[in-house]
Amino acid sequence: MTKDNWKRWGADDERGALNHIGPDQVKRAASLVTSGEVLTLAQSLSPRTPVPAHRHGIQHFMGRDGGDYAAGARRPGGFQFAEDTVVLPLHIGTHIDALCHAWYDDQLFNGFPQSATRSTSGAAHCGIDKMGPIVSRGILLDIVRLQGSLPADGAAITLDDLHRAAQVAGVKPEKGDIVLIRTGWQERIKPGVSFNEEPGINLEAGLWLAESEVAIVGADNFAVEQLPFPEGTVFPVHQRLIRDFGIPLLEGLVLRPLADALAQAGRGAFLFAAAPLPVVGGTGSPIAPIAVL
Amino acid sequence: MTKDNWKRWGADDERGALNHIGPDQVKRAASLVTSGEVLTLAQSLSPRTPVPAHRHGIQHFMGRDGGDYAAGARRPGGFQFAEDTVVLPLHIGTHIDALCHAWYDDQLFNGFPQSATRSTSGAAHCGIDKMGPIVSRGILLDIVRLQGSLPADGAAITLDDLHRAAQVAGVKPEKGDIVLIRTGWQERIKPGVSFNEEPGINLEAGLWLAESEVAIVGADNFAVEQLPFPEGTVFPVHQRLIRDFGIPLLEGLVLRPLADALAQAGRGAFLFAAAPLPVVGGTGSPIAPIAVL
Amino acid sequence: MTKDNWKRWGADDERGALNHIGPDQVKRAASLVTSGEVLTLAQSLSPRTPVPAHRHGIQHFMGRDGGDYAAGARRPGGFQFAEDTVVLPLHIGTHIDALCHAWYDDQLFNGFPQSATRSTSGAAHCGIDKMGPIVSRGILLDIVRLQGSLPADGAAITLDDLHRAAQVAGVKPEKGDIVLIRTGWQERIKPGVSFNEEPGINLEAGLWLAESEVAIVGADNFAVEQLPFPEGTVFPVHQRLIRDFGIPLLEGLVLRPLADALAQAGRGAFLFAAAPLPVVGGTGSPIAPIAVL
Amino acid sequence: MTKDNWKRWGADDERGALNHIGPDQVKRAASLVTSGEVLTLAQSLSPRTPVPAHRHGIQHFMGRDGGDYAAGARRPGGFQFAEDTVVLPLHIGTHIDALCHAWYDDQLFNGFPQSATRSTSGAAHCGIDKMGPIVSRGILLDIVRLQGSLPADGAAITLDDLHRAAQVAGVKPEKGDIVLIRTGWQERIKPGVSFNEEPGINLEAGLWLAESEVAIVGADNFAVEQLPFPEGTVFPVHQRLIRDFGIPLLEGLVLRPLADALAQAGRGAFLFAAAPLPVVGGTGSPIAPIAVL
Repeated sequence: MTKDNWKRWGADDERGALNHIGPDQVKRAASLVTSGEVLTLAQSLSPRTPVPAHRHGIQHFMGRDGGDYAAGARRPGGFQFAEDTVVLPLHIGTHIDALCHAWYDDQLFNGFPQSATRSTSGAAHCGIDKMGPIVSRGILLDIVRLQGSLPADGAAITLDDLHRAAQVAGVKPEKGDIVLIRTGWQERIKPGVSFNEEPGINLEAGLWLAESEVAIVGADNFAVEQLPFPEGTVFPVHQRLIRDFGIPLLEGLVLRPLADALAQAGRGAFLFAAAPLPVVGGTGSPIAPIAVL
Repeated sequence: MTKDNWKRWGADDERGALNHIGPDQVKRAASLVTSGEVLTLAQSLSPRTPVPAHRHGIQHFMGRDGGDYAAGARRPGGFQFAEDTVVLPLHIGTHIDALCHAWYDDQLFNGFPQSATRSTSGAAHCGIDKMGPIVSRGILLDIVRLQGSLPADGAAITLDDLHRAAQVAGVKPEKGDIVLIRTGWQERIKPGVSFNEEPGINLEAGLWLAESEVAIVGADNFAVEQLPFPEGTVFPVHQRLIRDFGIPLLEGLVLRPLADALAQAGRGAFLFAAAPLPVVGGTGSPIAPIAVL
Repeated sequence: MTKDNWKRWGADDERGALNHIGPDQVKRAASLVTSGEVLTLAQSLSPRTPVPAHRHGIQHFMGRDGGDYAAGARRPGGFQFAEDTVVLPLHIGTHIDALCHAWYDDQLFNGFPQSATRSTSGAAHCGIDKMGPIVSRGILLDIVRLQGSLPADGAAITLDDLHRAAQVAGVKPEKGDIVLIRTGWQERIKPGVSFNEEPGINLEAGLWLAESEVAIVGADNFAVEQLPFPEGTVFPVHQRLIRDFGIPLLEGLVLRPLADALAQAGRGAFLFAAAPLPVVGGTGSPIAPIAVL
Repeated sequence: MTKDNWKRWGADDERGALNHIGPDQVKRAASLVTSGEVLTLAQSLSPRTPVPAHRHGIQHFMGRDGGDYAAGARRPGGFQFAEDTVVLPLHIGTHIDALCHAWYDDQLFNGFPQSATRSTSGAAHCGIDKMGPIVSRGILLDIVRLQGSLPADGAAITLDDLHRAAQVAGVKPEKGDIVLIRTGWQERIKPGVSFNEEPGINLEAGLWLAESEVAIVGADNFAVEQLPFPEGTVFPVHQRLIRDFGIPLLEGLVLRPLADALAQAGRGAFLFAAAPLPVVGGTGSPIAPIAVL
């Protein structure tokens, strides 16, 4: 166990806790596939995808569509096609935070200076392009199931909650795991929802996962952690997990179908596979994680 | 075997050949994981990602970065962060074509009318949001290895080439497979490359794959198929495979590392996992496919 | 007087009522400059510029800024610079509608077919690029001043209102005039304002202006015309003025400073000058009109 | 005469040399209107508008168009419309540089710190939103006419050239003037043109204009000044005119029609009117300046 992963994988390392995933973790994950059921954990992306008030939503523009042919567009050799472009904020919907996304004291994970993250080039260090594909064991800690109800906005999900949810699921966070926490927030939000309040893990719970050497912590809420923050703190879980431990956070997951499938199968672990868009210097990426049972 | 998959999975089906992938295909894919090696098959995405002359490249904008803190931005509770937005054409870099991307005679796959693909809402049918996650057996047909050299621009990769490449790899395209074809194009292109010429499969080769009931056909070139087209045709493989068989095409793959790893391991098949961004009504998506050996 | 300007300036004409402005109108406008006072009639443009719920606002991205230099960016020869990009809806803030913006019965002004307005190329006819610079006499019809209060949402500004406001101002709409109508809406809206209700001219008032051969009708509201529409109609003023008379509408003007300056000077007319961004095939343009007294 | 305009109009001034334009300059400009001829000085804006290799071009997206109606879109009350959005770099085509666009020694015009120009908010000082409308006397210094041929790339336009061109035009740069310099570059460039070479004014010529108290210096090239720069310097005219004198530069003008009209009329001065898009914190704006003869 360690409290701090700087230099753990060398002075040049930009992948942090993803280094906990080695061939053994991958093979173990593959061995979990027994039913062949495949689930997506992603929200769909559209101009209606909810965003906090201070952020823009998605814009989706058709560069060519069926209407153009209805209006008489040429079709050389019979060929017709449609194409499109999105204006896509990288932290929208179901998305993963790169290690350059959050920091304090002017230094990113592993001591990289913030000054290498600029308008002109994005993040020279710890960008989403450094993350690579993620294949490992996923486990679900289902707080909704544990509590028998949807946690309220502002509620802290504590270390004890995680312990008990793990026990219910029959799993234990281990090295290289992708730990997903179901808070129920995503299942109950409505258009215009405030992104300033949500149930989420507190710092103690987050540090326990970090010290368990998990690779990624994810949740079905906006910020993984409890909002509003404990007094006197701002995004404490982001600060410690991303910047000190090099743990990417996976946010906005859709977890209810997975929860139902796991409960029905009487299991808590599955094969998790996902890969962010490798945007050079990007601070995160929308992502569509896959669970295979 | 069938020549045409319309109505094969019902009048409402929008997933086409992906229906060939069932639990058995998924389980077989998982069983292929023996070394735990994980590879990405994706190009990185940046303003330098090559695009055809008639398309725009990516724009990447930082909404907040390290420079802003260097210039004095507030850091409440010590928290600092960076975020960004991309203007992202959906057919750029390594990407997958949705079934609404290409058609002829005013009808998409399964008979959906082109008129449901509009500026205002994108594709109401066969959009990339209907595709879902993809987990199946991947096989690599390595034409570069087969020929011992990089195929020339304009060269047709024929049915015989595919047969022989499959033989070399010790595999055979089967129901639900993800078939990846290495033409070497991606490995040799330079900035400013023309997207009007490339080696690629001809229609006969494509139809053989379709009739073998594969789920997806991919390649490391721009359009899977041979460019320029055979005289009198325009994107014949797109027309037949996407629109008639419901087979998504996966383009711009990075296949050399996979080719090397498979050759070294003396194998031709692997676990393939990928999920497009579920853009509602989108005609395709950049994607970062994963191969696990 | 005429009810309908199709073919009035030839079968190829794409400028409509702007043809009413000839050298005499320009010279008369210049002769109105007596005090040399210059006013803008434009809202500022930013992510806070109000937009209807169904439209996106502006996004403003810095490609290079002072923060980048604070973070250590190179300054060859001492030179430092900042640059930026906007994602800009063309009907936002203070903007002008091109003649291709609104129509009925599948035909634009002067009989051009709607089918020439496509995703791939914008409007082949009557685009904002056909409008050119606008210099003519401006007159202000100040309904707020006339009524001594701010007209309510939904109120119709009638022909009689325009007559009386013109009388108060000591002006009369004439050939080639730019007629600006102050409803007070822009002065009182707050963030989150509904764009479904506003005071504005009714069709009779609009037709009188059209038949007076004015070149442009503008207002300080969102759509020039009364919202909600009279029962059974949808944008009747847009339909008739833009499509039948070829009169561009100028929307979202800031008119209070002009109203105050004119009232103080005891005059009703001024030099109006403005030029849209000549976006090829664009349906409108943000614009910053100038009034000179 | 002055070499440096910092603090000349107060410590808070953000408009620089535009302060040279007062009511007298405006009235004089209006008095120049004799024929009523109106000309635009702007390039059209489209994806084909030339840009330097390091910058993106325009993207133009139709949000709704005639094709959508051809494909069956509803038309409530008969109303049909088209709308669109552009991704618009603010220094493209014919555009004006805000005073925040260029600087040295970490300070903008009038001593404002570069640190107030950030990703999050654009330029807090000297942004394009501070510029306001511009109405003054325009004069054309026609180097093409003077030399009887198109100046070569890299050629310096010198103080002597400006003197002689002014003499030919029968004008003299005076306080508040908009001085436009025709180099012929815009008239001869072709798609793919390098933006690294062009004829333009040298620093001595620029300083003479600055000391003549002109309000704006414009040209029909990309950067007003000579490219490549004199050895050991980088954008010396930008550095001195924008940052020290507060003179906005107006670039990419279309000047041949104006040159022809002025030559035919035997005059050198005209009414100039233009207004940038008031993008809050923007570093410049595409602009469509108007000349009235």
